[in-house]
Amino acid sequence: MAVHTVSLQFQTNGHADMRDITPDVARALSESRLKAGLVTLFVPGSTAALTTIEYEAGALHDFQRLFDEIASAQREYEHNLRWGDGNGHSHVRAALLGPSLTVPFSEGRLLLGTWQQIILVDFDNRPRSRTLIAQIMGEA
Amino acid sequence: MAVHTVSLQFQTNGHADMRDITPDVARALSESRLKAGLVTLFVPGSTAALTTIEYEAGALHDFQRLFDEIASAQREYEHNLRWGDGNGHSHVRAALLGPSLTVPFSEGRLLLGTWQQIILVDFDNRPRSRTLIAQIMGEA
Amino acid sequence: MAVHTVSLQFQTNGHADMRDITPDVARALSESRLKAGLVTLFVPGSTAALTTIEYEAGALHDFQRLFDEIASAQREYEHNLRWGDGNGHSHVRAALLGPSLTVPFSEGRLLLGTWQQIILVDFDNRPRSRTLIAQIMGEA
Repeated sequence: MAVHTVSLQFQTNGHADMRDITPDVARALSESRLKAGLVTLFVPGSTAALTTIEYEAGALHDFQRLFDEIASAQREYEHNLRWGDGNGHSHVRAALLGPSLTVPFSEGRLLLGTWQQIILVDFDNRPRSRTLIAQIMGEA
Repeated sequence: MAVHTVSLQFQTNGHADMRDITPDVARALSESRLKAGLVTLFVPGSTAALTTIEYEAGALHDFQRLFDEIASAQREYEHNLRWGDGNGHSHVRAALLGPSLTVPFSEGRLLLGTWQQIILVDFDNRPRSRTLIAQIMGEA
Repeated sequence: MAVHTVSLQFQTNGHADMRDITPDVARALSESRLKAGLVTLFVPGSTAALTTIEYEAGALHDFQRLFDEIASAQREYEHNLRWGDGNGHSHVRAALLGPSLTVPFSEGRLLLGTWQQIILVDFDNRPRSRTLIAQIMGEA
């Protein structure tokens, strides 16, 4: 059993930009040479989150609409009144979706569905440079 | 330390069918003979998800109503306009709830609450045959 | 590789009380003396949940408002009609947010963002005594 902790870098546009990070995670897994175990993805920061989705423009648009409806950027937030940075909705959305995702792998391959991609969602209200953690734990 | 990767099969009805999979997970854990560690559950596919709930008809109904309200099957989805499969709401719901769940175990027992069951939620708009991954990592 | 399973105790006020449990998790990690791996947090019970957020009063208030809006305590729930305990909204909210959170650590340090804290959210409708599981798995 071994643990590999890898950093992955992404430039995002913010505003619920949804980035397919599956190739990056698969590459980190391949470089670890581990065969069976868990990849834990974690985004440090409180305005971004992780999940999986079928990565096609329609589903992404629909998913963004959900957040526009339940946590609109257009309304008042206590966070904004106190801090003036205008990203109260980003905090609420990120806390709801969550900062971590765990994907098992076997025979050196992520056990994702064919139409299932891992996405980083950047809810912040400006472009950001993000450093994700991919921690790979398993056996060779 | 060891890793066991097990497949669990379920036939679901779709339409937010919520299946109590706790007995299946407990059986997989028992067969692994591991004593302390993590069970990571993961559903390959982009229209189903996992969480825990008190598995009684009232709470299940209430939970389904939440999804009917925030991501109704009755409205338009870009996904549907592009692909015509009518399950745009399924994708949005599954991405929000998430495909993975991690439950620790100790002394060979899942550390769930008494009234807390693990559920597979199939949000697709038709019956599906689902293969879940249960990856058990820990020490004997 | 080793596994440490630790119990953490918290008294909460219920009603979406959000408690910063980061110092407790960091202490458990420090006492484990492990250097690289995963902390898995899990809340046994079906009316509480875990996530991360910037722990300041504005963001907490905004996050609570989201749950008041999508799963109000003021409306009818099937769970309440059947069981009469008045916490149907608590079950729905907890199932949506989820009972587990996984945070990687490296060089003995949780890989959280600077403004990102781990919170226990107690959605129940009364004060509760909660026992969380922190399972620390990794290498020394």
